[in-house]
Amino acid sequence: MREFILKANKAITSGNVNLKDLPGSCGRLDLVCRCISSAFFLSHDIRRDTVFYSVHYGEPNPPVALKFVGSELKRLSPDERSIAIFIKKALSKEHNSKWRESTPGIYHAKKDFREIVLEKIEKGRNVYFLHLRGKPIKDVINSRTYNEIKDRGFVFILGDHIGLTEEDERFLNDLKIEKLSLSPLELHANQCIDIVHNILDKLEYRR
Amino acid sequence: MREFILKANKAITSGNVNLKDLPGSCGRLDLVCRCISSAFFLSHDIRRDTVFYSVHYGEPNPPVALKFVGSELKRLSPDERSIAIFIKKALSKEHNSKWRESTPGIYHAKKDFREIVLEKIEKGRNVYFLHLRGKPIKDVINSRTYNEIKDRGFVFILGDHIGLTEEDERFLNDLKIEKLSLSPLELHANQCIDIVHNILDKLEYRR
Repeated sequence: MREFILKANKAITSGNVNLKDLPGSCGRLDLVCRCISSAFFLSHDIRRDTVFYSVHYGEPNPPVALKFVGSELKRLSPDERSIAIFIKKALSKEHNSKWRESTPGIYHAKKDFREIVLEKIEKGRNVYFLHLRGKPIKDVINSRTYNEIKDRGFVFILGDHIGLTEEDERFLNDLKIEKLSLSPLELHANQCIDIVHNILDKLEYRR
Repeated sequence: MREFILKANKAITSGNVNLKDLPGSCGRLDLVCRCISSAFFLSHDIRRDTVFYSVHYGEPNPPVALKFVGSELKRLSPDERSIAIFIKKALSKEHNSKWRESTPGIYHAKKDFREIVLEKIEKGRNVYFLHLRGKPIKDVINSRTYNEIKDRGFVFILGDHIGLTEEDERFLNDLKIEKLSLSPLELHANQCIDIVHNILDKLEYRR
């Protein structure tokens, strides 16, 4: 299983999503949509082995967490606008502390970023934080280590254009979550997802 | 210089772009927009060393070619809708055989896919065709070969969800253009651009 957790600092937390203004009034919801497109879409196929979490900290009601489960998704297309329509539906519901399904494979809850990270740690997953100044990913995930890590499952934490707070970074650090770097340049979260999938695909299929 | 040429088999060739339906009536213009986002956008920066061509073969007036020049782009944002607005402007102009500027860094012309490829060959560029069944890219572009290839410039040809025609593939083959593979899975063109940039970034900055 490949899991991604995006902390979306400004992403809107109500159903008042203006599809004509995903970057502005929706708090960079365009980035969340592109992350979902990168997480799940292959050419003519969907990645069933992937789960994506987006934790929104924008107005008016932070935090709200969304969960997308690849094996259950239906009728989703890879373009930002159609993904935003599904997000709008999920954000329009009432949220409580438990995951509830909005449309097939898309869940919503009143959960914060740290709760989701802790849940993954408790389940024994290998959790990594993707960061410009981390260790090169190939030093940690490579042909020697892949099968063992895969058995426990991969979880990658991503920041948005603002990144994680110092407090969040300390929280991850205290949990001994390793920082991994994908690139010498600072990339968008969706680009990181494309690169991570590619690294794992090549290891999975031994190329 | 890094250049990408996308053959967009169904992409619209008039300014009649419906921003609410980029995938359908605009012939997968959403994919073209995501490719431009991947080609140029870093977190908080733009790739000035990149040029992207999109050659549209959809209705009503194929072909129409668009050229995006990273060093000249202004006011572009990474979301699909705002990129589509710039494309709509460029497609609304009258086209002739010469490149003409629509908005800063965005050019349009009545050129076909092969003409653009031939122009790159004539300029001595290293032209590659990204294809599922190509040679693994690392066998061709790696730390031994990078500097020499870089001096002549990289050009990567990409297909859309339909891919290139058999005739186009023969054309590339006759020009001895090598097929390179990025992944064991069939990816979207924008995902390929993210992966190519990452490979070249790591070689450029020696990581």
